[in-house]
Amino acid sequence: MSGPARDSVGRMETLRDIGELAAIERIARRLPGRRDVVVGVGDDCAVVRLSGGAGVDWVLTSDPVVQGTHFAAETAPEDVGHKAVGRVLSDIAAMGADPRWGLIDIVAPSALPVATLDGLYRGAVALAGAHDFCIVGGDLSEGPALEAHVFGVGAVPCGRAVLRSGARPGDLLFVTGTLGGSASGRHLRFEPRVKEGRWLRDWAGAMIDVSDGLAADARHLATMSGAGCDLDARAVPVSDAARALRDGVPPLDHALRDGEDFELLFALAEEREDEFMAAWRKAFDLPCTRIGIVTDRAGLVRCCFPDGATVALEGAGYAHFRQASSACAAKTTG
Amino acid sequence: MSGPARDSVGRMETLRDIGELAAIERIARRLPGRRDVVVGVGDDCAVVRLSGGAGVDWVLTSDPVVQGTHFAAETAPEDVGHKAVGRVLSDIAAMGADPRWGLIDIVAPSALPVATLDGLYRGAVALAGAHDFCIVGGDLSEGPALEAHVFGVGAVPCGRAVLRSGARPGDLLFVTGTLGGSASGRHLRFEPRVKEGRWLRDWAGAMIDVSDGLAADARHLATMSGAGCDLDARAVPVSDAARALRDGVPPLDHALRDGEDFELLFALAEEREDEFMAAWRKAFDLPCTRIGIVTDRAGLVRCCFPDGATVALEGAGYAHFRQASSACAAKTTG
Repeated sequence: MSGPARDSVGRMETLRDIGELAAIERIARRLPGRRDVVVGVGDDCAVVRLSGGAGVDWVLTSDPVVQGTHFAAETAPEDVGHKAVGRVLSDIAAMGADPRWGLIDIVAPSALPVATLDGLYRGAVALAGAHDFCIVGGDLSEGPALEAHVFGVGAVPCGRAVLRSGARPGDLLFVTGTLGGSASGRHLRFEPRVKEGRWLRDWAGAMIDVSDGLAADARHLATMSGAGCDLDARAVPVSDAARALRDGVPPLDHALRDGEDFELLFALAEEREDEFMAAWRKAFDLPCTRIGIVTDRAGLVRCCFPDGATVALEGAGYAHFRQASSACAAKTTG
Repeated sequence: MSGPARDSVGRMETLRDIGELAAIERIARRLPGRRDVVVGVGDDCAVVRLSGGAGVDWVLTSDPVVQGTHFAAETAPEDVGHKAVGRVLSDIAAMGADPRWGLIDIVAPSALPVATLDGLYRGAVALAGAHDFCIVGGDLSEGPALEAHVFGVGAVPCGRAVLRSGARPGDLLFVTGTLGGSASGRHLRFEPRVKEGRWLRDWAGAMIDVSDGLAADARHLATMSGAGCDLDARAVPVSDAARALRDGVPPLDHALRDGEDFELLFALAEEREDEFMAAWRKAFDLPCTRIGIVTDRAGLVRCCFPDGATVALEGAGYAHFRQASSACAAKTTG
């Protein structure tokens, strides 16, 4: 075994030094696979299969909300519960799966008002119930700050989970809803796209929920597919909230890099576009927008402007332990 | 909707005021049941069943370890990972189920050394691997203190999960291993009784793992079974660690009320005792001790001494948000 990781001057490396994604890669390398694990670390959910399992694959996911990181001390407890369950439902939706059962681990200081716990569960159970997601238990422990960790199990017909890795050059990229400015409130009160995700499993070749920001999640999808993404700057559906910010940052930049939109980004075979758009409009009122194309430039996500300029979107999006960097880290002309 | 809970002088009630068990009862009342949920809140795991589910029930459980609550800042990270996974394996064992898949949510400050994360996973994956429990993913988020939340899925033949509620008056009570003094180190490095739990599903009418302390867990089992428990003071297997404490507390008291032994407490039909003991000795080197009997005194757990005295064990054991109270809260003579 090698000694602890140190930087070039011998200091012990911390999570701040390496960031969330490198830390997750370190963890993933430690986890052995097994025959019944169809998909491990790296997608919105893990996918597992029981032999003789009645034609069903199970998707498993977990997400925390931590006070000071995912919500503020003054956030309404109902919103905390809604967000905690909504994040997990969004992950299950991004696999094209049906939510089934959940557990909630609460961590709280002993001075937490009982009314806060009640409110959190009220918000959690209301959203869970709306999506037929049954909370069956969990845990309650003492700790320094309020947190809710939700674990979710979903079901999908065997082999039908929609992975991040299924995008092919030439596929079209679509996104549901509008993007950006979720910090104004939507990050707490979003509606997870559960019915849309389930419906999309008959259409999408690859799918991910937009939680780290469009640019970052497009990169996750691209990387897992061994492909690239070209996004059309004019097409990206910028939310009213992003336009209303007037903080000196272009609304498009908010749409590209703000996290926690919880919309679905997916790839569709190009020849199915007309049939798909007609079927979508019949099924949903929610907008669904074609925002780009899958390319063969592995791992490269670009934003393409009408004047022919392209911006490589590197390092954009939310990552734990590090500050988010600018969406426009490198500019090239294409 | 009624307003927030307040005490008699109008102050908002906190978790410290009501304690862990009352808080869990409040939560349980909010959770709706569903046909596919065989067992919800109140057992070591929830039990869920898919129609046409190939003869398998799933058990679901989650447990956290939080720095300052479940381990100290100076605890070796390998031990933190071992304990986090071990708690979940112990819950799965207490259902008589086979561990299958797990997820780990880590919360950590950004200054956490990467080597600590590595060590935590090393401990977690080593124990998981020893029990064929496959860690398939999780989450990594920023927060004020190091925590690991493990979510576990186990499998058990349909209808065969061993519940807390199956004890009947006249059944004999057994416990594996020895009890007490786990704070000396065993609470971090215990071996979850996975193979014993799986084996016991052919024998035990009711089972629970000893995590809150023997007296408290006997009461959980009694309450869920609508029965009582009489424990034989001479028979309770006191650990060497409890005997070595010399802190003025009788070793038996440690065995009755210390938490985190992670042994299995179970009820066995009286007529199977001889056959059971012979089979156990053939299967395992681990001690298994008859420590008492199930009574018809609903909810009452007593410790019976050779002189005929009995002690009602009330309020003993570890409960979050409140200090543990004495094992000997009330003494009666029987």
